[in-house]
Order: sequence, then C-alpha cells, then structure tokens
Amino acid sequence: MSADSTNGIDVFFNAKNVAIYGASATPNSVGQAILQNFIKPQYTGKVYAVNPKYDQVLGVPCYPSLQDIPSPVDMVIVAVPARIAPRVFEDIAKKGTGAAIVISGGFSEIGPKGEELEDEIVRIGEENHIRIIGPNCVGVVDTNTHIDTFFLPEFRCARPKASNVANISLVSQSGAFAAAISDWTAELGLGISKIISLGNKCDVDDDDLLRYLAEDPTTQVICFYTEGYDPGKGRTFFKHAKMVTPDKPVLVVKSGRGERAKAAASSHTGSLAGSDNIADAAYRQAGIIRPDNFEQMFDMAKALSMQPPARGDRVLMITNGGGLGVMTTDALEALELAIPHPSSELRNRLRERLPAYCAIGNPVDVVGDSDSSRYDTVFEEALRTQEYDIVLVGMLMQTPSLGMDITNVIANHQRASDVPFVVVSMGGGFTIKAGEIMELMGVPTYDTGERAALAAKALAEYGEVKYGESFKKTVNNS
Amino acid sequence: MSADSTNGIDVFFNAKNVAIYGASATPNSVGQAILQNFIKPQYTGKVYAVNPKYDQVLGVPCYPSLQDIPSPVDMVIVAVPARIAPRVFEDIAKKGTGAAIVISGGFSEIGPKGEELEDEIVRIGEENHIRIIGPNCVGVVDTNTHIDTFFLPEFRCARPKASNVANISLVSQSGAFAAAISDWTAELGLGISKIISLGNKCDVDDDDLLRYLAEDPTTQVICFYTEGYDPGKGRTFFKHAKMVTPDKPVLVVKSGRGERAKAAASSHTGSLAGSDNIADAAYRQAGIIRPDNFEQMFDMAKALSMQPPARGDRVLMITNGGGLGVMTTDALEALELAIPHPSSELRNRLRERLPAYCAIGNPVDVVGDSDSSRYDTVFEEALRTQEYDIVLVGMLMQTPSLGMDITNVIANHQRASDVPFVVVSMGGGFTIKAGEIMELMGVPTYDTGERAALAAKALAEYGEVKYGESFKKTVNNS
Repeated sequence: MSADSTNGIDVFFNAKNVAIYGASATPNSVGQAILQNFIKPQYTGKVYAVNPKYDQVLGVPCYPSLQDIPSPVDMVIVAVPARIAPRVFEDIAKKGTGAAIVISGGFSEIGPKGEELEDEIVRIGEENHIRIIGPNCVGVVDTNTHIDTFFLPEFRCARPKASNVANISLVSQSGAFAAAISDWTAELGLGISKIISLGNKCDVDDDDLLRYLAEDPTTQVICFYTEGYDPGKGRTFFKHAKMVTPDKPVLVVKSGRGERAKAAASSHTGSLAGSDNIADAAYRQAGIIRPDNFEQMFDMAKALSMQPPARGDRVLMITNGGGLGVMTTDALEALELAIPHPSSELRNRLRERLPAYCAIGNPVDVVGDSDSSRYDTVFEEALRTQEYDIVLVGMLMQTPSLGMDITNVIANHQRASDVPFVVVSMGGGFTIKAGEIMELMGVPTYDTGERAALAAKALAEYGEVKYGESFKKTVNNS
Repeated sequence: MSADSTNGIDVFFNAKNVAIYGASATPNSVGQAILQNFIKPQYTGKVYAVNPKYDQVLGVPCYPSLQDIPSPVDMVIVAVPARIAPRVFEDIAKKGTGAAIVISGGFSEIGPKGEELEDEIVRIGEENHIRIIGPNCVGVVDTNTHIDTFFLPEFRCARPKASNVANISLVSQSGAFAAAISDWTAELGLGISKIISLGNKCDVDDDDLLRYLAEDPTTQVICFYTEGYDPGKGRTFFKHAKMVTPDKPVLVVKSGRGERAKAAASSHTGSLAGSDNIADAAYRQAGIIRPDNFEQMFDMAKALSMQPPARGDRVLMITNGGGLGVMTTDALEALELAIPHPSSELRNRLRERLPAYCAIGNPVDVVGDSDSSRYDTVFEEALRTQEYDIVLVGMLMQTPSLGMDITNVIANHQRASDVPFVVVSMGGGFTIKAGEIMELMGVPTYDTGERAALAAKALAEYGEVKYGESFKKTVNNS
C-alpha cells in the first residue's frame, strides 16, 4: 500500500525512522518512556532523540533539532510543552516529515489559549502536508511493527499481541481508555493489530482510520470508542462505513446515551453528542454494530474475528446443563434470535441415537452425564439437515464425564460445516483453561450464557449486514 | 440454634455423624466421590459407608444397613438407584435419622414411574420426620463445617472459601449450576458460606432455606437460582422474604422470562414459570432484588456483602479517566440513580484545592496525572458536606502517577464515613492485583463502569428496602 493511497496514514504504523521530540533523561518522564519503547529489540527501525539539552539519551544520539539529524525522518513524536509546539512544527515542516503524533496536552481541551496553539499547529500541518494524530493522546500501538508511543509502563499497562488467525484494531478518542484497552485485551488474550488514541482529533479522525483499517490486511474487525463527531464529520464517517461494513465488521461504542453523560462528554473532550436515537439509526443504516459497552464490544469482536458471519438467525443450543439451557434461551429470546424447534426428521434421528432421558428440543439437553459423543451426534445430525445458522454449545466442564476431546469435536464440526459456533462454559480454573484451549482451536468461548448469546447475536447481525437480502431472517425485530 | 427452631434444616450443614448410602469402591463413581469428601481432614465429624457389598471402602468401615452402624447417624446421603430408594428410606426411618440428601436421579423428573418412587420416599419421610434435600441434586457444600456432598472432582469443580468478613449463601434448583457456581465463586474469591442444590424439591424448598439462612450467622447475603415455585409455595416464600429482607439482602435469579425459556424450564424441572411481570411485582413487594443473571447476582452480592446499604440514591463519581466517567455516568443514568452536581460550597472548596485543569462536576475528573492526594481531597470535602450517599471511584492504574496508596485512601475514607464505596478499575495484570488488594481492604472492585454502577444500584436498592421511608430518594423511578 503506497503512502498516497492511505492519505498519509500508513506511516503512523510503519515508520522506519522515528524522532522523539522532547526525549528526556529524566526517569519516568513521558519523553523517556516513549524513547524506551523504541529502543526495545522488537522495533527494527531507527530512532532519534531531539532535545537541545542532551547529546544522547539512553544511548540514543540526541539532536537540538530535526534539521541536525543526518538522515530522513518519517514520523515525529511530540512530547514538549504545548506552548513550544508551533516551533516544533516549523522544524517538522523544514525537515519535510509527513507525520506527527502529538502526545502533549494543553491544547483545545483547556480552553481558548490552548485552542490558539492547536489552530497554529493545524495550520502549519496543512500547509506542509503533515498529518497529525492528537494532540492530548497516548498515540499508537502496533503489535506487528512495534511502533509504540504509549508512555505507560508495561508492568502497569500490558501491550496485547497479534494473533496468527484474526486481529482486531481499536480506535479510541480517550487516551486513558486506549491504555486500559491495551492492558485489558492483553489479559483477555484477544488478537490485536493496532490501538490508536485520537485525543483532540485536530487532523486525523475516526473517518481517516476507518478508511485506512478497511484496507489493512492485518485488521479483520474495526472497533471504535467515541464520544461524538465534529460538526460535518459524522456524515462522512457513516458514508464510508456503509462501504466498509459489507467487507469488514465495524463496531462503535458511543457514550453519551443519557443527558448527564452527554454533559460529561462535553466537559471531557468538548464533543457534541447529539441525539442518541439519531445516532442509533445512522449506525444501523451504515451497517455498524453498536455495543453498549466495552465488555460487549470485546465479546462481539472476538466472535466476529474468529467465526464466519451467520447466514441466518436460527440458533441451535445444545447443553449438558438444563439450567444453563434455560438461562441462555432467555438471553437469545431477549436478543430476538430465532430458536426453532428441531424438524420432525431431526427429532426422530436424535431420539434414535441419544439416550431416552435426553431432552430433545431447542435447547437439546444431553444431560449431566454426557460425554463428547452425544455432542458429536447432535452436531452431525443438526448440521446435516441445515436447519440452523448458528450453534451455541453449553459445555459445563465440572462433570467428570465430559473429557477434553469435546473441544476437538466442536472445532472439527465448526470447520467442516463453516457454520459459526460459540461456546459457553461457566466456572473456574479448569473451565477457564478448557475455554482457552477452545479458543486456540478457533471457537470463541464465554463464561455466561448471556455473553455467548450476545456473541451469537453479533454473528447474526453482521451476517445480515454482509449478506443483505440473502440473509435468512426468521425473527422480525424491526 | 436448636434443630427444632430451624425445622430440621440445621443438621444438613452441621451433621457430626454422616452415612453414605451407596458408598462404592469403584473409582470415579458418585458413591466413592462423596465418601472421599468426608474423609478429608477438614471434615471433623464421623463418616460411615453403607453398602452390603463391602466391609470397608477407602478404609472407612462399611455396613450392610444403617441398623448395623454401632452409633447414631444424624444425616444420610443417598446415592443408590432410584428403585431401591424406598427400601433405603425404611432403613433411615428405623435408624431414627432426621435428614437425608438424595443425590440420585430417576424420580419425578423422568415421568410417572419416577414420580411414584418420589411420592413413596416423601411419604416415609413425612411419617418419620425425615427432612429430604433432593432428589436429583448435588446436595450441599458448607465452607465452614466442610460438609460436602458434591460428587464433582475438585480439580474440575473448585470449592469456594469462607471469608472472615462477610459471606454469601447460594441456593440453586439446578445441580449443574450449583457446581458451576461453586467453581466460579472459588475463582472470583467471593466469600461463600453455603451452596445448596435443591433438585426436585420433594421436601426442603426455597422457603425452608430462606428461613434457615435468615437466622444463619455465617450468611450475610442470600442468593437463589430458581426456575419456578410449586403451586402455593411461591406465596409462602414471598411472605417470609418480606420479613427477612429488612435484615438481610435476598437476591433471586429467576429464569424463564421469555416464552421459549419457560418451555425449556418446564422440560428441565417441570416448573411452572407463570407470568414474569407478576413475578417481578411479587419480588419487589417482598424487598427481593432480582438480577437478570449470575454475573449481575455475583456483582451485586459482592457489594452487599462488603459494604453498608446506601441511605439514599445520590452517587458521586470521581475518576482519573474522563472517558470512564462518561461511560459510567451513562450506566448510572440508565439505572435511574441520582448524579447530582456538587453544591456551590463543595465546588468552591474543590476548586481551591485541586489543580485548575481538573473538571469539577459529577463526575469529578482529577485527570490522568492524578496521584492519590487528589482523590483524598475529593473524598474529604464531599463526605464532609454529606451530599452524596454512594461514592463510585474510577481508578485507572495504567498511569504511573497513581500509586498503590490509593487503595488505603479509599478504604480509610469508606471506613471513617460508613458511606458505601464501589471501585471500577479496567485493565489486566497489575490492575487485577490492585483490585484484589482493594477487596481485601473491604471495597468491592469491578472491571467496567457498568458493573460498578450496577453494584451502586444494588446498594441503593437494598438501602430502600432496609430504611424504607427514611431512604432519601431523589430519582422517581416508579
């Protein structure tokens, strides 16, 4: 992908020559923390420090200005007080560098005085073709190229890893959330490609990243946290999203549903939140999925990154715990998914092959003493008749009769059928490990029926976006 | 507490002489797994095996019948095929034992034939004053006396521990859920006193346990999972609950909200679920809190077991992350809690004492570079003016400026004020450990703003139950 076609965004993730403006010898300072990220062995590009106070910082040569660096610089990270930012931008312009991440705060978020400074760097940026992320942000983490401008120590704020299978990229207006998301997704073991904190969005915004990530081969699901869009920007974002969503799922958590939260958002980032109902409609028309919160977003993104979208809304549940079946059915029904009874053909086949005390319906309850072979039977028969679009598997591992081979049975049927599967497995240590194994085999696993049902909903919701008219819709949830 | 006043229930948790009917030398059998629990050193009572096939099992003397045991037996655990259960009950009656837990299935849940057998043991029980838990259940785990009839291996199904501070007891109709809850609460580190699986409820039911747990000094919060009540039993349960709830919080997860789930419940346990709206009203009138699912129940029970109930619905939020403030405010508003702005007196005091770039409102945003002293200031001033009933603390630990002393600051202000606090801290490894420390200090901690907001809601909801007219209600959520 050429720098041109991405409108100057690609370099933020692939810069080979990075300068840290405001690199510092002071331990725990922002300027030192960022430099440390770039001298780790994973980052294979070159890094330069810029600060008139030093000849070197942490062994990295340090220059009074970008002009003094004896080689080209393709990205500058700015960690200097806001008042000298305009001077720094003059230097960036002279060097001919096309990308800057401004970490520093003290701009439009603090009032008119900071707004002036922000206007000034935007003006210089526009005149000199410098794309700007920020200001007032933590910048970018790329788990493939190891560009990492997060100034938060790794022991407090872990960085996630890229998965070999499918990856999620996350764009957050809030820097604190970007950091917490990095830390949280690392803990969850989600495959992440990029996390971008946009801060004041003085130049690069949601729309730029939407278009970039749509073309990014390392991103399979695109997630946003936003508190609102600048006037006029929302419309462009939705227009582009409509083109992206048939190819890649886009999820947006937008806060400010209530009046009080809108006021808080306005004082946080100055965003105008607008009517939430209008936002909801716009998201739906653009094919964007709107989770209520981060937990939901991660749960949905995990399913969408690991499983194919559903070709209809008919869910089959199978469980070895009746109560789990009841609770999950409640959740599926509340989410307006279809839970059709098995056809008489399927019922008869299952009755022939399962013990008499199994409950054959939807859910199919294979009962607490089930081993994996009963699951195998249900999958085989139900996938053969093709009367279900999603399989939701309740797998309670407390019972000694259910061996770890259940994970193979599930993964094999999923792969052979290409019907999406999600698993719910409630419990502690052993169950959690079994769920991790299940996910390494590619099937997303959740600790409650409600979360698994929501994952199923995401697969159906995105299936409808992707397949449009040919999506088999049973439930009318207009 | 005498056996009389608890109506024969106490012995299920305090039996000193237990007989396992159907104790078995077959590895991995139910009859062996249960016996194993009672020969662990934690159980300090005596245990006897009953099985005509053996002289001893696992070194425990084994007798052909209860009659042959040369000492009294105060509880019998029955793990024999259903068809011989009536004979076993004749033996229990002759021995004069007053309590039996029937683990075995094959009773009313399988149809008319099993129903006959169940009626027969109920008849013998009634005539001979034998209280019965089950049949078709996993029985009882008591974390204090180490009575443990769960036949599930501990490596798959961990048992929770009692806390020194406050404990929850859980009653579940479903055995699989009882096991999963045991395993899950062990992982969460929740303080648990008792878990009881009721199965077919042929005798001991929700109402018996409600009344028993109400008087149990080791239970501070009572939780139920139920799929429905037998005809006539619901009314008695609600009548008693109304008397219990002003003293102890009672939470009920009742599945079968939707029509499909009701059908699944009926095939699972034969319960008649009835109208969900009527149930909702009955729960409310009885002062029972009704979470939607287990995750919510555990989150609420944790808060109610660790914190005092709120005396009103006015929540103050303080955060070092603006986005977290916005998201949490959304959740508080959706839950109909009051989020009043600080009084002018409080605003002025905070403006004097906090840096100018902190946002003074509700939430109070002490900003990403905050150390614990800004929190200290906000707590001190806001608790002095007594304008808030609940404090919700956003504590993002990714930032290096926030030291672990924040946990002491929070715990100290909570203890000194007796105002309930809840904490939200999003993230991975370091954050999770910090949350565990916070909970050891007595303040419940959650990984999302939505979960913390729900905990605050539970503290307000229960405050209203406890304090009635004197609860200061700002939001009219009728």
